[in-house]
Amino acid sequence: MAATFIPAVTAMSLPTLRLNKNEERRLRGGHLWIYSNEVDSKATPLKGFDAGQQVLVESSQGKALGVAYVNPNSLICARLLDSDSKAFGQKQIDQRLRQALELREQLYPEPCYRLVYGESDWLPGLVVDRFGDHLSVQFNTAGMEALREPVLQALQKVLQPQSILLRNDASVRKLEGLPEVVECVHGESPEDVELVENGVRFLAPLASGQKTGWFYDQRPNRAWLRELAPGKRVLDVFSYVGSFGVQAAAFGASEVWCNDASELALEKAHENAVLNAVGDKLVTLQGDAFEALRQLKDDGERFDIVIVDPPAFIKRKKDLKEGALAYRRINELAMRLLNYGGYLISGSCSMHMPREELLDIVRAASRHIDRNAQVLMEGMQGADHPVHPAIPETRYLKAVLSRISR
Amino acid sequence: MAATFIPAVTAMSLPTLRLNKNEERRLRGGHLWIYSNEVDSKATPLKGFDAGQQVLVESSQGKALGVAYVNPNSLICARLLDSDSKAFGQKQIDQRLRQALELREQLYPEPCYRLVYGESDWLPGLVVDRFGDHLSVQFNTAGMEALREPVLQALQKVLQPQSILLRNDASVRKLEGLPEVVECVHGESPEDVELVENGVRFLAPLASGQKTGWFYDQRPNRAWLRELAPGKRVLDVFSYVGSFGVQAAAFGASEVWCNDASELALEKAHENAVLNAVGDKLVTLQGDAFEALRQLKDDGERFDIVIVDPPAFIKRKKDLKEGALAYRRINELAMRLLNYGGYLISGSCSMHMPREELLDIVRAASRHIDRNAQVLMEGMQGADHPVHPAIPETRYLKAVLSRISR
Repeated sequence: MAATFIPAVTAMSLPTLRLNKNEERRLRGGHLWIYSNEVDSKATPLKGFDAGQQVLVESSQGKALGVAYVNPNSLICARLLDSDSKAFGQKQIDQRLRQALELREQLYPEPCYRLVYGESDWLPGLVVDRFGDHLSVQFNTAGMEALREPVLQALQKVLQPQSILLRNDASVRKLEGLPEVVECVHGESPEDVELVENGVRFLAPLASGQKTGWFYDQRPNRAWLRELAPGKRVLDVFSYVGSFGVQAAAFGASEVWCNDASELALEKAHENAVLNAVGDKLVTLQGDAFEALRQLKDDGERFDIVIVDPPAFIKRKKDLKEGALAYRRINELAMRLLNYGGYLISGSCSMHMPREELLDIVRAASRHIDRNAQVLMEGMQGADHPVHPAIPETRYLKAVLSRISR
Repeated sequence: MAATFIPAVTAMSLPTLRLNKNEERRLRGGHLWIYSNEVDSKATPLKGFDAGQQVLVESSQGKALGVAYVNPNSLICARLLDSDSKAFGQKQIDQRLRQALELREQLYPEPCYRLVYGESDWLPGLVVDRFGDHLSVQFNTAGMEALREPVLQALQKVLQPQSILLRNDASVRKLEGLPEVVECVHGESPEDVELVENGVRFLAPLASGQKTGWFYDQRPNRAWLRELAPGKRVLDVFSYVGSFGVQAAAFGASEVWCNDASELALEKAHENAVLNAVGDKLVTLQGDAFEALRQLKDDGERFDIVIVDPPAFIKRKKDLKEGALAYRRINELAMRLLNYGGYLISGSCSMHMPREELLDIVRAASRHIDRNAQVLMEGMQGADHPVHPAIPETRYLKAVLSRISR
């Protein structure tokens, strides 16, 4: 399948992609993306390239800027791979992978992390999550798909994993003209994979779970529960397999309620609680979050900590207003369930939601129900999801920890 | 001295401060400040109030908004204390202090923290830093100065401290028409006070040190060194008494260089290293930071981690451009001293510096010297300096952790 996208890449044979005047500036500042309207389409028409093909990018004055891969069908029509002019292949991929691994080994005591985070690790379009000896991989662009074989070889060489699962079912692949498919390409991927996060053990559903099976990005924000959770009654809304909730229980919460729409996720959450010997603390509550929070309110249930980490309510920029309203509603519902002096952890993985906006949602919701918020911490994605400082899109996760008082 | 500012406050006797039309909106949203141009100066001329006097704030339509204290000589001419209409005194201060204490006791294993952070703890103008049994206090507004006796009583009642030092020498007091003075008002304040931060012991100079003697605000960002420092060669620029540097050494750095302009600060840094049994790892380097970094470069010294946490380069909004340039220069100098793959911790306590700007400074500096930055974490002040979500000025500290690669 992927073979159709593999162009013949031989050294020194790269065709040229020429930019319009001044369009090299952002790239010189570190950015990796080229938009289709920045290309000198007279000199080098995009239609002349295959999806995934590597090119040498030139400024309008003919100065070489580096090697990129192209997708003529995408708005981001090219992504820079290297400032070098040589074709990007096995050698460079090996080196980038080792550099990515070095960072994670520095940061984490266990081999459980996002090993490669696309552009931020200078491997645009590639995501690799590591669960010990098992890898879950996403090729999200035609250009990275074309590099699939050297990427898989690099992973085998550097990590000697037991299994590699391709979770190539992200919707972004459709935009790139790529098929959506999940396949094990090395060894045997287990149904559930074990991982350790903040010292707590989890089983995550590799092939059937959301995204790559686990969201490592909230790790530092889940760690907040270490100080907060002991002795507390906790509610984890949108709990998935219990990533916040089970950690709260393991850190000493007296009782944890997990709410999710998926019965399967809640079953896993319970398994994960049992795995950490806190199964007796966990209450699961299947159903729509908005309805569940209203019901809990009516039933007079109150909590010391509520976590609200919904899926992205804002998928496109134009949904910002409507999405922000949904965040506002769910946060207000959550706040109403808090005892005075209780803590709210409010997450948003919507890249289009500005961080100030989430803060303001917490403020406005608290004022609307006549309470006062203190923001104790504003968190972001963990360091295994580095931010590329020239590409704001690589900073997507927000988490606000606040105390809600009378 | 302070007696001149203490108005006679008796229940039900509060005079009224009337706002202009619609100026109550920000207050209803949670904000506590009233600017002089928002006051209906015909109905209630500011000149009719004493500095520090309490008033009942009303909307233009005569609706009570709460009690505030006034300073007719300040741009922020009043700060809300309570949505109640009663005079704000001992009872309310006791309650706010207990609420503030409850939060810190939840968060920290040792009694070392900012106990009261002004507006964010609904005690506008008051700062209390706690070092175990010793307190360092700032009354930064005339209105809080007028509440000095009940505040001191509350501190004694709730905490039974051994000593209370007033560090009333902050320059903001001048703007409020208050004298600048340092005085011990209870017990005997020691010259150096002991504290524990992130498990590392320190002595901080209470009366002679900067601000209250110690900067608790960088605590969570210093904790980054726990994972990063082991085995590394570290440079701490603007080290003061070694708050970053000594923690790096205690966490396992192989060698730590501390640079500061103050010989005294460096002596204390060395004492602090000895206190943690890492005196042999510490090298001190007295002198101007810009010059010191240039010299280190010329001498061929290289480090694995460099920390650059300067004093506020931007004191007023109009200094933003010039100040940003200074941050850019010092960060670039620091980056030049890093080994490839090294880590930079870049701080800014300038409230006027937007967080995006500091990120961009790291980006631009790295590109200028042909390196690439990955931003691993963007930090802020610790949770004992909560952010008031309606008052952006309460969020002032920024810290960026980045890895600088070839």
